[in-house]
Amino acid sequence: MTDHQPGRHMAAEIDQQPGIFADLHARRDAIAPVASVIAERRPRFVLLAARGSSDHAALYAKYLTEVLLELPAGLVSPSTTTLYGAQPDLRDVLLVAVSQSGGSPDLLEVTESARARGALTVAVTNTASSPLNGAAELSVDVGAGVEQAVAATKTYSATLLALYLLVDAIRGGDGAAAARLGDLARATLDSSADAVAEAVQRYRFVDRVLTTGRGYSLPTALESALKLAETSYLAARAYSGADLLHGPVAAVDAETAVLAVTSAGKGGDALHDVLDAVHGRGADVLAVGSASDKVSAALRIPVPETAEEVAPILEILPVQRLAHGLALARGGDPDNPRGLNKVTRTR
Amino acid sequence: MTDHQPGRHMAAEIDQQPGIFADLHARRDAIAPVASVIAERRPRFVLLAARGSSDHAALYAKYLTEVLLELPAGLVSPSTTTLYGAQPDLRDVLLVAVSQSGGSPDLLEVTESARARGALTVAVTNTASSPLNGAAELSVDVGAGVEQAVAATKTYSATLLALYLLVDAIRGGDGAAAARLGDLARATLDSSADAVAEAVQRYRFVDRVLTTGRGYSLPTALESALKLAETSYLAARAYSGADLLHGPVAAVDAETAVLAVTSAGKGGDALHDVLDAVHGRGADVLAVGSASDKVSAALRIPVPETAEEVAPILEILPVQRLAHGLALARGGDPDNPRGLNKVTRTR
Repeated sequence: MTDHQPGRHMAAEIDQQPGIFADLHARRDAIAPVASVIAERRPRFVLLAARGSSDHAALYAKYLTEVLLELPAGLVSPSTTTLYGAQPDLRDVLLVAVSQSGGSPDLLEVTESARARGALTVAVTNTASSPLNGAAELSVDVGAGVEQAVAATKTYSATLLALYLLVDAIRGGDGAAAARLGDLARATLDSSADAVAEAVQRYRFVDRVLTTGRGYSLPTALESALKLAETSYLAARAYSGADLLHGPVAAVDAETAVLAVTSAGKGGDALHDVLDAVHGRGADVLAVGSASDKVSAALRIPVPETAEEVAPILEILPVQRLAHGLALARGGDPDNPRGLNKVTRTR
Repeated sequence: MTDHQPGRHMAAEIDQQPGIFADLHARRDAIAPVASVIAERRPRFVLLAARGSSDHAALYAKYLTEVLLELPAGLVSPSTTTLYGAQPDLRDVLLVAVSQSGGSPDLLEVTESARARGALTVAVTNTASSPLNGAAELSVDVGAGVEQAVAATKTYSATLLALYLLVDAIRGGDGAAAARLGDLARATLDSSADAVAEAVQRYRFVDRVLTTGRGYSLPTALESALKLAETSYLAARAYSGADLLHGPVAAVDAETAVLAVTSAGKGGDALHDVLDAVHGRGADVLAVGSASDKVSAALRIPVPETAEEVAPILEILPVQRLAHGLALARGGDPDNPRGLNKVTRTR
């Protein structure tokens, strides 16, 4: 690997996203039969199971489920199955297992157990032949192609889009809000390039980073913190804007950089109070999103405006570029972060 | 407030916990009628709503619900109600709203909305006359007495115990596993004092702290990170042991202190792999819990062994003392952390 140019894979995979979004939208008919089965079974409760970046995709799906399908939803704690052997009654439950590789043993066990307990199970993976696909009754193929970099980029955003298309199809939608995401992703990458380069310079030496968002943008804040932690080794933490005010804001000071995900809509609007408190503590705010110009910030990374429920699919793109740029500036290789493997075999 | 001795309230409230646990166990008959109503209604799904420290208590209740009651459970994202106005069908759902003050507007709105949509609603608060108690059909009084320090200590641990007694009563138990927690809490505080004092010296200058746990001990890891962040302004982050290996472990290095919650049982056992990876990255490990002598660590804080499902009620006590000691050593006042109020009015 001595001739490997650091971050080459991650950069290439970030750039593939516009095409992947357009392809996935064009292939949305493949998701329709899965959505039909789910709609016919009329689940009353939705459980989402995932680990790592996919956990943030699952949280996005939780918001979609609660807001667009008006079904109560929860994220699975795999350990209640894998460690404690709980065997709940899961009739009328839809379990959605989200995994890039489809190879995580704990998700496999959770899915097999849930199916045996009566749940309708769906695997959403980027590896159509994975054990998880075999274990679940239904499958959605994310179709982002093989991901070489250990840090997930295209598989994360494409998983969000696949989950959106699935949820939208369950409610009888035609995916219209996602129709232009390919073009908009290209516009996002192009229009944010200068601001991202400036942010790489500004945060070259930062150590304390906090990310925040509300509503649909909370998963973006979580994924942003993970991406910065795993590629640039930053002590990056994510908080819901609401939770931040319940304690962690005390740790915010002038040495803290706050990445605030502020997209047009109710989630972004609800962040204004939070950012006032953060500003009051002297923090340096980097605002990312289509409403980044509506808040006071040291630096803004613009994103084209979309329907709020698909904004997370675009918001993360410049943050991936920022993580990539910071990692290189700090001497790392975002394709191969220290201490990580592509498939993490937790139980 | 010029004559206030910093941290006086927090220290006193930490010391009240053994008595509060004994009292709460003695008053468990007050919880029995609430448990009976819930058992009769036979909920099929459980939703838990909370913010801040109470969110960690809610996660503990999620584990109890899934393992002991074998019911699927999820944590509520209040914003789907308060920002997006979702109106799901909540028949057959038990909603448990957990709040020290019972005054958080978003939890009030979530509870009112859930009750209107058919859920059986229970408020678990430390303020029996709160608006949340008025909004919910049923109430459990934590009864920890007024908490003066902004950093929650006794209300957190007592809320855990109240939730344990509630869940245990729903399944027809008599709270036996919690019978000796008053004495054990006293023993925990006494036997851990020297190790806590040593930890305060050792971590006096630390900046990067990561906390981890699995299963029942994950809520303790989350609450530990929050307590250290809000009182000592540390960049403390919490991860499930499993999620840690999916990325954040890359940010762990020799400058990182890792607080590992390792209690006897399956959750503690499952942490061994995680700590091997963390050690491999040169981190300094502080092990807290009844199985802290089973892992390699720079420092250990012992806790008496109990049934695993009540261990979180004891594990947090020495960490509260650590947060208090570190805050004082670093010149802060844990009774009044900068930037915080006792009741946080998020929506």
